Amino acid sequence: MADSLLFVPRLTVVGAGPGDPELLTLKGARVLAAADVVLYDALANEALLGHARPGASLIFVGKRQGFMAYTQQGINELIVQQAYHHGHVVRLKGGDPFVFGRGREEMLYAEAHGLATDYVPGISSAVAAAGSLGIPATHRGLSEGFRVLTATTADGQLSASLLEAARTPRTTTIILMGMTRLAEIAALFDRYGGADVPAAVVQNGTLPGARAVTGTVATIADLASRAGLGAPAVIVLGEVVRLAKIPGQASTPAEALPGFLPELLAYAKVA
Amino acid sequence: MADSLLFVPRLTVVGAGPGDPELLTLKGARVLAAADVVLYDALANEALLGHARPGASLIFVGKRQGFMAYTQQGINELIVQQAYHHGHVVRLKGGDPFVFGRGREEMLYAEAHGLATDYVPGISSAVAAAGSLGIPATHRGLSEGFRVLTATTADGQLSASLLEAARTPRTTTIILMGMTRLAEIAALFDRYGGADVPAAVVQNGTLPGARAVTGTVATIADLASRAGLGAPAVIVLGEVVRLAKIPGQASTPAEALPGFLPELLAYAKVA
Repeated sequence: MADSLLFVPRLTVVGAGPGDPELLTLKGARVLAAADVVLYDALANEALLGHARPGASLIFVGKRQGFMAYTQQGINELIVQQAYHHGHVVRLKGGDPFVFGRGREEMLYAEAHGLATDYVPGISSAVAAAGSLGIPATHRGLSEGFRVLTATTADGQLSASLLEAARTPRTTTIILMGMTRLAEIAALFDRYGGADVPAAVVQNGTLPGARAVTGTVATIADLASRAGLGAPAVIVLGEVVRLAKIPGQASTPAEALPGFLPELLAYAKVA
Repeated sequence: MADSLLFVPRLTVVGAGPGDPELLTLKGARVLAAADVVLYDALANEALLGHARPGASLIFVGKRQGFMAYTQQGINELIVQQAYHHGHVVRLKGGDPFVFGRGREEMLYAEAHGLATDYVPGISSAVAAAGSLGIPATHRGLSEGFRVLTATTADGQLSASLLEAARTPRTTTIILMGMTRLAEIAALFDRYGGADVPAAVVQNGTLPGARAVTGTVATIADLASRAGLGAPAVIVLGEVVRLAKIPGQASTPAEALPGFLPELLAYAKVA
C-alpha cells in the first residue's frame, strides 16, 4: 500500500489501563480492532492484543529485562513510517497515555509529520491500583483532593513537588515509579507531615497477583521491604489509606481506626 | 426473593466515565449486564443503561433540575434494601467512583450492613476531558505531575489547597466543579503564579457537544463567560494548556508558542 495514499495515515494513542485487561474501554477495544499496526509497550497486558484483527502488525517497542527495544525518537519515527505504509497506527500504552505516558509527545511528532491523531483515555493505575484495595483517591472528611507525582525529575533528583506534598498531607499523594526512592520519600514526609500519616504500597494493583502493605510514613519503607514489594507499584500517602480493605483480611471497622474523623463515621455507622 | 438468601446481597460501584458512553470499561459493561438493580445518577450518560439486562430495575437517584431524588443517606439505605431484596446492586456513577464520587462512602455503609462490595474504576473527566482536546495532565518538560481539586470545601469556602496550587504552577492543576468560582480561582493564581499561566475551560469533554476556551489566568474568566461556558466543566491551569488542539482550529505550531521550552521542542520538531 506504500505507493497509494487512499488511506489516511493516522495515529491513535490508546490507554491500556492499569493491568486487568477488562479495564480497557469499549472504545479502546474498538479502535484496537480497527488498527493496521499496533505498537505496544511492556506495561500493557499482552492479553489486550487479542482485540487486534488477524493480519494487523503487532510491534513491541517497550523495555524488557532492562533492554529498550527502541529509543523515544525511534518510536516516534516508527509511528510515522508505519502510518504512511499501512494506515492506522495504534499506540497502546499502560494506564492513560497522558499520565506520564508521553502520549502527547508522540502525537505532536506525528502531527508535525502530517498524521491525523486521536487519543483514547485509559484507566490510570494512579487511582485504580489503590482503589482496587478500597483506598479512594478522595473521601469526604479525609481528603480535599489528590496529586499524582513521580519520585524523580528528568535529571534523577527527588522531585521538588514532593516537598509541597509533604507539607500538605490533607491532599492525598499518589506516587508512580517511586519504589527505589520509597525510604527517602517517607523521610521527607516524616520531616514535614509527621510520622503518623497513613501510607500504602500496592504492587500489581487490579491484577490477580496484587500485593499490598499499609502502615504509616514511619513504617512503610520497612514493611514494603520485608514483604519484598517492588516495581511496578503505587505509593499512597494520606488519611484515605485508613479505608483499605485487603482481600483475605477482615476490614477494619471504621470505629476502631485511630484518629477516625466524626464526619466520616456519620456515614459509615450502622443505622 | 426477600424470604430466601440463596443469593449474595452485594454492591458494585462502577465508574461510568466522563460522558462518551464508549469510555465505559469492558468490566463495567459486563457488571452492568449482570446487575439485578442499577442505581444511577445524572452524571452517567443514560445510553449506558442499555448494557443492563431486560428486567433489571433501573432507579434514578441523582439530581435533576436542581431537585435531588434522594439524600446521600437515602441512597445508602436504598442500596442495602435493594441488595437484600434482589441481590446484586450496581451503583453507576459519572467518572470514577473514588474521585469525588462518594463511592467508598457507599461501600462502607454497605459493608457495615453485611453486603459484599466491589469497585470497578472509571475514566475520570479530570484527565480525559482536557485530554480529548490535546491537553495532557503531564508532559515532559512542561509539568512534573498534576493535582485534582474541587473549588470549595464542604462548608462552601474556597479550598485551601488552591493556595498551594497557585504557588506551584509547575504541577498541573485540574479543578472539577469549579465554574461558579472561576474568577476567584483565576485571581488567586494571578496573585501567586503570575497572570501568564495558561488556562483552559472544557465543557462536556468527550461528548459531541464539547466546547472549550484557552487563554491565561488573566483572561480565562472573561473568555469562559463570553463563550457562555458553564457546568459541567473542567478547569485546567498550567503550561500543558499550550498543547491544546481545538477541533476546527489549526493546531498552533510548537515553535510559535510563547515561552515554549526547548526540551519539548526537541521532541516535537520535524526531523
